[in-house]
Amino acid sequence: MIRIGIAGYGNLGKGVEAAVYNNPDMELVAVFSRRDPSTVKIRTEGVPVVEFSKMADYKDKIDVIVNCGGSATDLPVTTPVIAENFNVIDSFDTHARIPEHFENVNANAKKGNNVAVISVGWDPGMFSLNRLYMNAILPNGNDYTFWGRGVSQGHSDAIRRIDGVVDARQYTVPVESAVQSVRNGENPVLTTRQKHTRECYVVVEDGADKARIENEIKTMPNYFADYDTTVNFISMEELREKHMGIPHGGSVIRSGFTGMDNSTKHTIEYSLKLESNPEFTGSVLAAYARAAYKLNKNGESGCKTVFDIAPAMLMVEDADYLRAHML
Amino acid sequence: MIRIGIAGYGNLGKGVEAAVYNNPDMELVAVFSRRDPSTVKIRTEGVPVVEFSKMADYKDKIDVIVNCGGSATDLPVTTPVIAENFNVIDSFDTHARIPEHFENVNANAKKGNNVAVISVGWDPGMFSLNRLYMNAILPNGNDYTFWGRGVSQGHSDAIRRIDGVVDARQYTVPVESAVQSVRNGENPVLTTRQKHTRECYVVVEDGADKARIENEIKTMPNYFADYDTTVNFISMEELREKHMGIPHGGSVIRSGFTGMDNSTKHTIEYSLKLESNPEFTGSVLAAYARAAYKLNKNGESGCKTVFDIAPAMLMVEDADYLRAHML
Repeated sequence: MIRIGIAGYGNLGKGVEAAVYNNPDMELVAVFSRRDPSTVKIRTEGVPVVEFSKMADYKDKIDVIVNCGGSATDLPVTTPVIAENFNVIDSFDTHARIPEHFENVNANAKKGNNVAVISVGWDPGMFSLNRLYMNAILPNGNDYTFWGRGVSQGHSDAIRRIDGVVDARQYTVPVESAVQSVRNGENPVLTTRQKHTRECYVVVEDGADKARIENEIKTMPNYFADYDTTVNFISMEELREKHMGIPHGGSVIRSGFTGMDNSTKHTIEYSLKLESNPEFTGSVLAAYARAAYKLNKNGESGCKTVFDIAPAMLMVEDADYLRAHML
Repeated sequence: MIRIGIAGYGNLGKGVEAAVYNNPDMELVAVFSRRDPSTVKIRTEGVPVVEFSKMADYKDKIDVIVNCGGSATDLPVTTPVIAENFNVIDSFDTHARIPEHFENVNANAKKGNNVAVISVGWDPGMFSLNRLYMNAILPNGNDYTFWGRGVSQGHSDAIRRIDGVVDARQYTVPVESAVQSVRNGENPVLTTRQKHTRECYVVVEDGADKARIENEIKTMPNYFADYDTTVNFISMEELREKHMGIPHGGSVIRSGFTGMDNSTKHTIEYSLKLESNPEFTGSVLAAYARAAYKLNKNGESGCKTVFDIAPAMLMVEDADYLRAHML
């Protein structure tokens, strides 16, 4: 059994807990939290919630820590620290800071003789991986990424910060005609506005100025100004009834050419339809936790990404079985 | 530059030739053929066609041989022999015999300190790889594979062997309603007949008994009897005009569940639309030729499959670049 620890028990931590529960070769040993452990109720029976600061006490009891903190301020600090004592996985998703995070984690993982895998999930993660395979196979071509239909936490939060807003959900929606054009191999040049629309469901305070709020949303730089945005004002009841899920998904498509004159057309598409973004991301993290464990058993150490890990490492079964049954 | 040799110059060999031509870090050194070299005209200027039996003379001039023979009788014999002297890639696709082929190739590749990669292409190959990733991430669920719309060489050949048939093309076509049901996460149980139909375009001799031929096709065991098959008799002119391409494609779909009670639904799909099956397969072979070269430079030897090779190995760029730009 691979002994797993989860650091952080928000939506993603809960997703990892469920994934560990459903993987027959894994057991959850502890959940680490910065909150008072007595206030954190987890769903796996008999597993303790432990103060984050006491993680090192579990050095010989846990094989892999899945670090479920946020990318902005938490993971850059905690993953390198954890890597000194444990194999560790995170879902660091601030693309521009990946090289820096990699270096910090790599140094400490090597020092501790552990394997760390950063930026695991679906984007970065499975989408990046598929983009890489597509580019390796079809070096001449164009990549397209569409996200959604799904809830963007960042955009929902941005709406909530507007004066007079009580709660909000924002759905990122791919423009269907653009997706179809790409699937048809038309290689369109698409602006930001032509790729996605943004759908907002907003609950406001009694008597709030809806026209002002709608205008503030639609003109918000970076988040909404470059998109066709629709704003729907709804009641808290309707929000609770229809918008409590965290679905997401999307497609990575490469349209490429082969042949001596590069005139033969091919389209490769990888797409996801996810009822729960954190449960799916948690499942990807669990698979890479297995890989980290196996790689470390093979004597490896240091930081890795999904690009550096052979697919067979993600599976319970050995190479003979995989060749005979899955190739 | 990675120095490539191609063994066999049929459709697949030509596809590899084009892929090598389009990859900036590869050069074609020689094409090996069992035919009289003076009768084989290739498209890359200045590259010799050499008798298959003289391949060993190129031991120090070629980094990787891409073996483009057939799976039935050629690859099981030639890939192990080539593996003694060269890194080698093949597209061996007789699923049941993969373990045996692996052992034979592995022993010789180890002896020669070379890397061999077998069963490379899209099925086996990219489809297998995606099935594996999907299963690792969603251990609870169902896999579905749909092939087509595309030309099946095996089925076309089977029709051509019928008395009175001059030429034929057979298209494998996925049943659209079945694909949609799977995409919708309905987890249907599908019979062979419910997944694919078979469309045949047949040219017959003057005065041939079309009713008999149609019946022989539709009742042919394994090939057609288990499918809804349509037979269209056409002229040789129409065949030449409309059916000379070798398109193919298909989808691998996994419909799976997560959550503590396994009730959250997810769908992962990988799909291909290929205008030329051999050119696409040749492009996959070229990418894995690069991986074999890099692995061998790193001191590795023995037989591998797509499951054993880290994605970054397929790319020209180094790991730092890939992390900064593709993750």
